[in-house]
Amino acid sequence: MNELSSQTIWNDLQKIREQSPLVHNITNYVVMNLSANALLAIGASPVMAHAIEEVQEMVTHSQALVINVGTLSRPWLDSMQAAMKVAQEKRIPVILDPVGAGATHFRTNSVKQFLDDNLPNIIRGNVSEIFSLAGFECSTKGVDSTASLGSVVAEIRRLSHDYNCIVCISGKTDFVVHGNSTYAVSNGHPIMTRVTGMGCVATALVGAFVAVNDSPFKATAHAMALIGVVGEIAAEKSNGPGSFQTVFLDYLYKIDEPTLKARLKLEFQ
Amino acid sequence: MNELSSQTIWNDLQKIREQSPLVHNITNYVVMNLSANALLAIGASPVMAHAIEEVQEMVTHSQALVINVGTLSRPWLDSMQAAMKVAQEKRIPVILDPVGAGATHFRTNSVKQFLDDNLPNIIRGNVSEIFSLAGFECSTKGVDSTASLGSVVAEIRRLSHDYNCIVCISGKTDFVVHGNSTYAVSNGHPIMTRVTGMGCVATALVGAFVAVNDSPFKATAHAMALIGVVGEIAAEKSNGPGSFQTVFLDYLYKIDEPTLKARLKLEFQ
Amino acid sequence: MNELSSQTIWNDLQKIREQSPLVHNITNYVVMNLSANALLAIGASPVMAHAIEEVQEMVTHSQALVINVGTLSRPWLDSMQAAMKVAQEKRIPVILDPVGAGATHFRTNSVKQFLDDNLPNIIRGNVSEIFSLAGFECSTKGVDSTASLGSVVAEIRRLSHDYNCIVCISGKTDFVVHGNSTYAVSNGHPIMTRVTGMGCVATALVGAFVAVNDSPFKATAHAMALIGVVGEIAAEKSNGPGSFQTVFLDYLYKIDEPTLKARLKLEFQ
Repeated sequence: MNELSSQTIWNDLQKIREQSPLVHNITNYVVMNLSANALLAIGASPVMAHAIEEVQEMVTHSQALVINVGTLSRPWLDSMQAAMKVAQEKRIPVILDPVGAGATHFRTNSVKQFLDDNLPNIIRGNVSEIFSLAGFECSTKGVDSTASLGSVVAEIRRLSHDYNCIVCISGKTDFVVHGNSTYAVSNGHPIMTRVTGMGCVATALVGAFVAVNDSPFKATAHAMALIGVVGEIAAEKSNGPGSFQTVFLDYLYKIDEPTLKARLKLEFQ
Repeated sequence: MNELSSQTIWNDLQKIREQSPLVHNITNYVVMNLSANALLAIGASPVMAHAIEEVQEMVTHSQALVINVGTLSRPWLDSMQAAMKVAQEKRIPVILDPVGAGATHFRTNSVKQFLDDNLPNIIRGNVSEIFSLAGFECSTKGVDSTASLGSVVAEIRRLSHDYNCIVCISGKTDFVVHGNSTYAVSNGHPIMTRVTGMGCVATALVGAFVAVNDSPFKATAHAMALIGVVGEIAAEKSNGPGSFQTVFLDYLYKIDEPTLKARLKLEFQ
Repeated sequence: MNELSSQTIWNDLQKIREQSPLVHNITNYVVMNLSANALLAIGASPVMAHAIEEVQEMVTHSQALVINVGTLSRPWLDSMQAAMKVAQEKRIPVILDPVGAGATHFRTNSVKQFLDDNLPNIIRGNVSEIFSLAGFECSTKGVDSTASLGSVVAEIRRLSHDYNCIVCISGKTDFVVHGNSTYAVSNGHPIMTRVTGMGCVATALVGAFVAVNDSPFKATAHAMALIGVVGEIAAEKSNGPGSFQTVFLDYLYKIDEPTLKARLKLEFQ
């Protein structure tokens, strides 16, 4: 049964609030504060730690590890690899956000190495980032993810298969792919592209959901649906990208199941 | 006379606004922005500088040094030690926030070394952090600071005595301990635990108060009372953890003495 | 014709929204999030990247490079130099924010070296920062930029001439100087000094304007005028420094040409 619903999302949210899972983030400087606040708002416990001296110990306390290469440098890269290896041994789920993959060789190669080592269980990025990992040339501006739905999903399926991981590609519609199965989430609002780090926050929230749900496939779809629904509410109740962030955090905290149900646009394909 | 009041807090706030003390922060990436904004809101002048090439010079310009190990790494640790040593020589007060002490050996040992070298004048942390420094096993979730009031205060007193410093332990009630004397602040609101960095902000504000008040014991109690009162107001006037932050900064800036007086729950024990 | 107007600012804003120029920031930890959000709000595409392994490649994709030394360290300094040299070769405009110049020898000397190497096309700082680069002793608190208008502008002109760059000095009135020509912007509000990073945001916005306007002189005046006008609106519509930030981002996004026209206080001298 692959039918997800507002009820299955809500069940996970209740578990997050009850268990307060520790989500270890090795993420970029720009979004650290917003990621921590988003995780706290839904009831999780974020920790940010990046030093090689402590990441391996910190990850053993965690229920999920979020890796985000947004402001990557060599020392952080080494810590990410070390932390992911411990997570892999301890069967702690690893979620990777390949921010800027395709923009520089350093980022692209670093992320490809993570994939070649089979370190992430879940990858979440935008079209250009995911395509650069699939060895497919594109530019963000040049791809309309709705128009080219078929080819996009085919590419993601190949990537998911090659690296045995869940792949989530965000855009107007978010696709969450595991092998030949796909969830499509059509929630969200264009203003979210005018606020920095909304993708990174999505990745962090996936960390909280996968900490309480044995299926990384369902957990990822849940997180994407939640952020999409809350983003819609925040867009309606705010006056621009500044107040959007404020309302967004408020509703991550306040969201209820009927509101989720009324807005949810999630389908299994 | 150890009676503190809204008037003594207000007097310090007036001095902060008039003198605009420079508070040098070597703090974690997550809370840098909020800490700087909180310091600016009450009238202080924050500076963030962490490079070994400049911390010793920067601290000589400062009226307080705030050290926070939230995203500690080796180069930052070296800079913290160097800056604290200069502060000690120049009799500039040092406030330490042992974020995550107890979570990894790297953090715990780093902070213990600071204490063994008698570098901080004031330590402010939560129950699990302070207890880990006192060599007392606990988990944050496992301790109700109100229920176990007696044992908590005894532990803090020992720590305060051993390292000749003020120890502030934050929770539902905040205890500020110097030797056998204690201030207890019962202001604050549970939503503050759903916003990242409220503890770190408290530590930063202690820096501003100790810059204008010769008694680090009173200065710490003043700062904790201010953040608790403003936190209550912000909780009442906001709709969740997003708008909380906005209103919190607004009222750090707008707070007046009558409001402080009406809400203050500060007692000497 | 040096007459700038709300219409010329608006024309640049339209170009920014249409072209979405990539602005590469190597900036300080405190303001990264706000800078990215401000750039997104006006329609630009920010990227933050600082690793020596990728800055030279990243800058080649960019239409402007913003360098901010607010939390400078040796590895970042090396990356800044490398990125600026590539920008210079590729004729990508470089905007420098000398945060804290004058406070430590490390910062002052680093920034002076940038100037001696003729790397920045535009410098934007406050009075004390710019004066420290001009070899002129002052303290921020000791200078009223309005009172000492004449001497201030003379100093900036010399700096602009010596290093063949646009110099912008921010204060109650902002002066943008190129050789013997000056734009003076008298917009803005005192609350902006109680919010961290407003100067840094101004510098980042200059990056977006210079990416679409061939005249760095006019682009800088445009950016300063925009931030001043939006700052005034935000001050009027907010309740303190917390809500100021929220409204500020909202109006960077929502500003229209008639509002710019009604408030603009920009003159050529």
